[in-house]
Amino acid sequence: MKPPVITFSTLQAAVEIAATIAFALSGLLAGARKHLDAVGLCVVAGLSAFGGGTLRDVLLDRRPFFWVEHADWLWALMGLSFGAMLFLRKRHLALTERAIQWPDALGLGLFTANGALLALGAGQPDIVAVLMGVITATFGGVLRDIVCNEIPAAFHDHRPYALCSFVGGWVLVAVVRLDAPQWAAVSAAAVTVVALRGLALWTGWTLPAWRIHKR
Amino acid sequence: MKPPVITFSTLQAAVEIAATIAFALSGLLAGARKHLDAVGLCVVAGLSAFGGGTLRDVLLDRRPFFWVEHADWLWALMGLSFGAMLFLRKRHLALTERAIQWPDALGLGLFTANGALLALGAGQPDIVAVLMGVITATFGGVLRDIVCNEIPAAFHDHRPYALCSFVGGWVLVAVVRLDAPQWAAVSAAAVTVVALRGLALWTGWTLPAWRIHKR
Amino acid sequence: MKPPVITFSTLQAAVEIAATIAFALSGLLAGARKHLDAVGLCVVAGLSAFGGGTLRDVLLDRRPFFWVEHADWLWALMGLSFGAMLFLRKRHLALTERAIQWPDALGLGLFTANGALLALGAGQPDIVAVLMGVITATFGGVLRDIVCNEIPAAFHDHRPYALCSFVGGWVLVAVVRLDAPQWAAVSAAAVTVVALRGLALWTGWTLPAWRIHKR
Repeated sequence: MKPPVITFSTLQAAVEIAATIAFALSGLLAGARKHLDAVGLCVVAGLSAFGGGTLRDVLLDRRPFFWVEHADWLWALMGLSFGAMLFLRKRHLALTERAIQWPDALGLGLFTANGALLALGAGQPDIVAVLMGVITATFGGVLRDIVCNEIPAAFHDHRPYALCSFVGGWVLVAVVRLDAPQWAAVSAAAVTVVALRGLALWTGWTLPAWRIHKR
Repeated sequence: MKPPVITFSTLQAAVEIAATIAFALSGLLAGARKHLDAVGLCVVAGLSAFGGGTLRDVLLDRRPFFWVEHADWLWALMGLSFGAMLFLRKRHLALTERAIQWPDALGLGLFTANGALLALGAGQPDIVAVLMGVITATFGGVLRDIVCNEIPAAFHDHRPYALCSFVGGWVLVAVVRLDAPQWAAVSAAAVTVVALRGLALWTGWTLPAWRIHKR
Repeated sequence: MKPPVITFSTLQAAVEIAATIAFALSGLLAGARKHLDAVGLCVVAGLSAFGGGTLRDVLLDRRPFFWVEHADWLWALMGLSFGAMLFLRKRHLALTERAIQWPDALGLGLFTANGALLALGAGQPDIVAVLMGVITATFGGVLRDIVCNEIPAAFHDHRPYALCSFVGGWVLVAVVRLDAPQWAAVSAAAVTVVALRGLALWTGWTLPAWRIHKR
């Protein structure tokens, strides 16, 4: 099958857009659970969606941020937040949580690939590029949980999340180092992450815990 | 009435100074409530006062920070913290909280105008400039609350705070876009914010909450 | 006694390496107490070890970060985390906590000297350089505590920690201003911090608290 004729910048934009919405919804749900007000909901939605990429860009000293270059997305985010406030009822909450698991896994994969690719392009070492992918994909959720005054779920729920992103980051680096085209590297990494995350959710696999806890 | 003959940089400095003290005091009160030690009190006072502007400068990649350019203010901040520790008694606490509501509202207005103006000057889009104003004005308090291990009051107390700042930011952008002088834009924005915040405090207006919470 | 013939960059690297391990261990212990999973343990170990220096570099707009320039250290950190998970038992926990008090004090001293020196080299004012030393030495622990959903111990436990760093920072600035060689400035500052911290631990000296708390 021939790859679709798209430039990388189109792909990159599509990648960030698709993942952003799922992440914003995860922020809205977390904010709703903590009884945040309308302002707080917009902020956690925005932190969840743009926080990881923004932290990556600050660390890489890269400007402009996604939400500065595509400032219309800030309006979309506010629209999403108010739409959710108007239309989501209590009975929708658990449903939404379950429904976003898949776009969230997709976001995890796409953000990882995107972040790692940007870091490689900025000449970072492999391990740093992988880490930047993980930060892009997971630190939106970490900032969301810090603002909501929780220990970040990514560090605490003993289910593989950042780990899937970490493995996917190495897949991206490996494929890029093989001189494969960027769309192939991004696809391979994203598919790996989504498959691993799906497998982890399906099998209920938990991360090995420190023996110290098992008394 | 003719406007006073002041250069904008004078105005800018005066703006940051006046607002800084009110914000530092809000940090000291929050720290006292959490029984922080002398070091912690200085840090939350500093975070409250300089945190929002510093975060804005990091996001805009702007140097030097206010507290680097005017390093004397760090001494003033430490003096303020120790003065408060020596002279404020328990009975002064509620009094101080009530007394700083107005300078705090002033700070909200001045920091918003200042932050949005700087972002416009750095060539940011309107919505980003407004957001930078809001971040300048409110994220000092947000960082204060995160360090004090609380959900940030700005996102949680259902009273308009960041929202006043958001509206004021748009007033600033609108007046600047009308080619009015900067002092006029800053004044219009700050007056708007202070009036809105005052109105909100006076009428007890609360932000619309997500229906999900009303069972 | 003649000083050993080492270049400053060797000294600088040695300084950061020695302190990094003690700080990573403090993060692992804090994470274990909060029942973080393997991913979370690596993250808090990394935040504790590299967080302060990274925040300093972001504030000073300095690149590359230590963990980018010496990316191998990220592997060492992961190795340390997994080693601790495999070999540390419950009965080792209190022991480790006591055992790292001294390397932690050393780290406090070395990071302070290192951070303040870098800031002086970047042309910062004295008070800002001292502050950068304190941030380098203490904000790894602050970020660790924020992620672990605790009020940072450095602000709350009423024992001198950041204060020792603050005094040491001024020693460094003073010795540098006397045109002494850098190794002398770093040594004097580090020895001061370690001595003060040791004295504080030994005598149980507590920071003066706000009278408001003593009822």
